[in-house]
Amino acid sequence: MIVCTTKQQLKEQLALYKEGFPGSRVGLVPTMGFLHEGHASLMKRAKEECDFTVLSVFVNPLQFGPNEDFDRYPRDKQRDAALAENNGIDVLFMPDVSEMYPTKPLTRVLLSEVTERLCGASRPGHFDGVGTVVSKLFHLIQPDRAYFGMKDAQQVAVVERMVSDLDFSVEIIRCPTLRESDGLAMSSRNVFLNEEERRQAIILNSALEQAEQWAKEPGMTAPLFKERLSSYIGQAPLADIDYAELLHYPDLTDLPDDMELAASTQPLIIAIAVRFGDTRLIDNRIVEQKWRCAPHV
Amino acid sequence: MIVCTTKQQLKEQLALYKEGFPGSRVGLVPTMGFLHEGHASLMKRAKEECDFTVLSVFVNPLQFGPNEDFDRYPRDKQRDAALAENNGIDVLFMPDVSEMYPTKPLTRVLLSEVTERLCGASRPGHFDGVGTVVSKLFHLIQPDRAYFGMKDAQQVAVVERMVSDLDFSVEIIRCPTLRESDGLAMSSRNVFLNEEERRQAIILNSALEQAEQWAKEPGMTAPLFKERLSSYIGQAPLADIDYAELLHYPDLTDLPDDMELAASTQPLIIAIAVRFGDTRLIDNRIVEQKWRCAPHV
Repeated sequence: MIVCTTKQQLKEQLALYKEGFPGSRVGLVPTMGFLHEGHASLMKRAKEECDFTVLSVFVNPLQFGPNEDFDRYPRDKQRDAALAENNGIDVLFMPDVSEMYPTKPLTRVLLSEVTERLCGASRPGHFDGVGTVVSKLFHLIQPDRAYFGMKDAQQVAVVERMVSDLDFSVEIIRCPTLRESDGLAMSSRNVFLNEEERRQAIILNSALEQAEQWAKEPGMTAPLFKERLSSYIGQAPLADIDYAELLHYPDLTDLPDDMELAASTQPLIIAIAVRFGDTRLIDNRIVEQKWRCAPHV
Repeated sequence: MIVCTTKQQLKEQLALYKEGFPGSRVGLVPTMGFLHEGHASLMKRAKEECDFTVLSVFVNPLQFGPNEDFDRYPRDKQRDAALAENNGIDVLFMPDVSEMYPTKPLTRVLLSEVTERLCGASRPGHFDGVGTVVSKLFHLIQPDRAYFGMKDAQQVAVVERMVSDLDFSVEIIRCPTLRESDGLAMSSRNVFLNEEERRQAIILNSALEQAEQWAKEPGMTAPLFKERLSSYIGQAPLADIDYAELLHYPDLTDLPDDMELAASTQPLIIAIAVRFGDTRLIDNRIVEQKWRCAPHV
């Protein structure tokens, strides 16, 4: 595995590879590091489907608000590098902030509508930062495929829409959320939970499991569904709900209040964000048409 | 010359070419059509410097304001195609609006600061549309070099900054403004001028010629310079000044009011926009450090 900390090194490695193996498929796994099994599953999939794999590890300041956890976001470059190498990554791109943003960035890639709900509403500017840094990575690496985890389902929706709107020539691969044995979605932020918070955090996954069943009930509408979802999560005394939502996916538009959920012809997302102490966790389920739940996605 | 009206045709042609001639250099000349000798000079330069040349002709609705001249902007696809072929263009990309924007575009590439003066101030949203469509063309064509005319000097500054901020792997080539024999900068919009407007429109170039001299005068400051520039243009009775500015280039920031122009260590731009009837014309000169005027740029 070759580790690149500068754009120039990265470009040289990619040029060498592309010259030596024209027509081969490049896969990108963009991450913020502090890698866990969820990231490993993206790397494995990229490795299976591509001839050459690039992992990027970059905690992007542009996607953190002024009162968010950029400074305390967990980092462990050595462990990340070892895990990347174990997963057969060809190039690890690990720039620092001044390498990615050598001058004040005046350019932003902004999306409307699909960024206005869920985490986009709770974290103003977050998806502008995501769109901008993902554009930069796509330009630097020019991957044929890029792998994103569905734990961040809105991020997937935003990146897919950006790719389509701006005619990027990359295929976005949706990868299933990985979970701990008790169902908690894997996240780099889980390390911040204390013992009691960690115990109660399983309410996210159990709420989603229940909610998948409620969605099938005759006469169930979005307002009733969301009320029941919030009540269920409220059973965990430490849970401070940011949102508990039901929307169309990937458009992230509202359902009509009086529409029976079973009548929806589009996939839906059940999406929740809950704070435990200082730690904000998110999780979701995509419910496909005809109430076939997408397995693990 | 191959004419492509869809993105799919364009991608197929480019893929065929890149497969057959790996490592060869692709040049792009992005235009809004109604081609004149200025465009021809871009095509010639691209042809000299690149192995494969793409001309795009697309009147981009995103860069026109609601009260601007999108509908009446001059178009002549047949003449454009003939001129492109005469200039040795390999692929002419000529999509219609529904091909470029098949769904409502939710994504915008926005720039701050460098878009806030000159035409960015007079035409709100204009450069958002430029950044967005140029990003799309860069993604579709993946050129090694892209050729832009310095008549639109702010557009060049915006595109250069976007390329640098977003790590696009394309080199932007600044090409000199071409002029009619009496000095009027060539523009597709010149056809809208009536006889008297056309006669008076030469005031733009003569003002810039004078202004280059004023800039060398000892003690000359920006406020005095701009006042003199506006007065000079005001000699043409039909001239309705939108702006007559002096700024740093390419940052488009103000000079200190009390600074002698000769003390500037950065290149400056003298930029003017003037309406004659319904037709808005722009022109500029870049004045390099030490008052060496950039020849024709």
